[in-house]
Amino acid sequence: MKIAIHGYGNIGRGVESAAMQNPDVQITGVFTRRDPASVKTRTGVPVYAAEDIRKHKSDIDVVILCGGSATDLPVMTPSLAADFNVVDSFDTHAKIPQHFAAVDAAAKQGGHTALISGGWDPGMFSLNRLYAQAILPNGADYTFWGRGVSQGHSDAIRRIEGVLDARQYTVPVGEAVDAVRRGEQPTLTARQKHRRECYVVAAEGADKVAIEQAIKTMPNYFDEYDTTVTFITQEELLRDHAELPHGGMVLRSGKTGLNGEHKHTIEYKLTLDSNPEFTAGVLIALARAVDRLSRRGDTGCKTIFDIAPADLSPLSGEQLRAKLL
Amino acid sequence: MKIAIHGYGNIGRGVESAAMQNPDVQITGVFTRRDPASVKTRTGVPVYAAEDIRKHKSDIDVVILCGGSATDLPVMTPSLAADFNVVDSFDTHAKIPQHFAAVDAAAKQGGHTALISGGWDPGMFSLNRLYAQAILPNGADYTFWGRGVSQGHSDAIRRIEGVLDARQYTVPVGEAVDAVRRGEQPTLTARQKHRRECYVVAAEGADKVAIEQAIKTMPNYFDEYDTTVTFITQEELLRDHAELPHGGMVLRSGKTGLNGEHKHTIEYKLTLDSNPEFTAGVLIALARAVDRLSRRGDTGCKTIFDIAPADLSPLSGEQLRAKLL
Repeated sequence: MKIAIHGYGNIGRGVESAAMQNPDVQITGVFTRRDPASVKTRTGVPVYAAEDIRKHKSDIDVVILCGGSATDLPVMTPSLAADFNVVDSFDTHAKIPQHFAAVDAAAKQGGHTALISGGWDPGMFSLNRLYAQAILPNGADYTFWGRGVSQGHSDAIRRIEGVLDARQYTVPVGEAVDAVRRGEQPTLTARQKHRRECYVVAAEGADKVAIEQAIKTMPNYFDEYDTTVTFITQEELLRDHAELPHGGMVLRSGKTGLNGEHKHTIEYKLTLDSNPEFTAGVLIALARAVDRLSRRGDTGCKTIFDIAPADLSPLSGEQLRAKLL
Repeated sequence: MKIAIHGYGNIGRGVESAAMQNPDVQITGVFTRRDPASVKTRTGVPVYAAEDIRKHKSDIDVVILCGGSATDLPVMTPSLAADFNVVDSFDTHAKIPQHFAAVDAAAKQGGHTALISGGWDPGMFSLNRLYAQAILPNGADYTFWGRGVSQGHSDAIRRIEGVLDARQYTVPVGEAVDAVRRGEQPTLTARQKHRRECYVVAAEGADKVAIEQAIKTMPNYFDEYDTTVTFITQEELLRDHAELPHGGMVLRSGKTGLNGEHKHTIEYKLTLDSNPEFTAGVLIALARAVDRLSRRGDTGCKTIFDIAPADLSPLSGEQLRAKLL
């Protein structure tokens, strides 16, 4: 399978390294909106201008779009789905139906296969919510994120006056997780589920009290959480907070029996050193499935919900049944 | 969807109660090889002779087979797959390819859809092994079972002379689980992964030392494990060990990055008060998928690997994307 990497940020670089672990995957090139001469790939994959991607059509089975969900993917995924099989990691949950409709129309018109919202949330976490609800219809779902870096929250801190750099960690509250695991089906507020740890580099002479106050009272991002703010130097940030770990867990607590007398807990937990590299691993597996669906003539937009698990694996049905079932 | 329950043991009773939590599922009847007059269902579902099931054909969309894997299912699933859509929980891992071939031939000949080896292992655990391997190709898998009752091991103890009754719990070794979670990718022997707790009711005057020795040295079942044997009374067994809890976890520990510099752990964990009732929940969701595949003309034998997750859910594609993705 020949893939194109569209966009060379954290996820694009993750796809590049993940491809090396998948012998059936070959990278045709990185396609960038920057000057191709200014981009050097980590493994020597050739770099081309994004606008030239259609010239490479015969060398691409699937394009993996590695742009941002805010402004890039809503435009780029439908545009490319008209000419290529595509996979993206669109993660604005509220706008998924709208994005799906746009990509579905473009993919069907072009006779291509698209998959949106791949990754782990949306993605593997969504899948586990679906499986768990189907198995235990009488129950409650809980999703906890972290401990991990939230790039959106880190960006929000960086926009505060006097802040040079910042890293925000989302941390699940242990007591809440334990109560869910015990099958208590608690009702939890945002504050009871997660706390937020902020590491902030302030400009020389900046008003640290004002910065801390601005963070803690920021609507939606921080005001509903217990938030700690720690000021550190730029050197400390680069030394201790350079990585992008993340993870979390999806739990479903359900009851069965004629009188709900038996409790069950399903827990799916991810502990990730590198959020973008793990996401890239999911995207490659989904690209494999998209390539197969396309070859079978199954066009239009899909999500991870529509993909039979066997299509994600390089193994044959016989091998899967013999080794993994 | 109209289902038939074939066999009324623990799993059959589990399917009966799980059906009550699924408004789209209706039970046509329980089909038994015992005298139907001798079987009373918990919810008043009618009971018929297994040999008469073909008379009810027009009232059955899917037959859920709730027999044993040793002798029942290898015969019954192919036989019924010729005339019905069927789902079973065949769990003899080594014989799955053979069972698949027999059921596939019968189902295709009859134009029906079959699914074998549903449940949690094989089943949800298998699925998590597949997903995790596809996402993290460079890694190692670990499956731990328990803490839970192993019926096969309990039966093995009951066959020892002087034993009236017994319950065997399989228990994961905490140190091994912790090492896997830390990403150490340890190589583990059977003894290092699980220990076995046995609760035994001995006949009056039986030689308890000999019984304990017979258990601990039993090949395959116990000799490779650290095993504890506790003698209790029949009353204690009925009071403290009447339930069938089980569970366990599937872990994959993998590395990503150009030099494998990032570690990741995927963990899927089940904590079940009732093994048969949880298994029944999986079987009902799979029966829903089999019914849909059959209506689409997709015949032959399937496994959980072949089922797009969306087909397990009563929700529509639109609802799933809006609510769960």
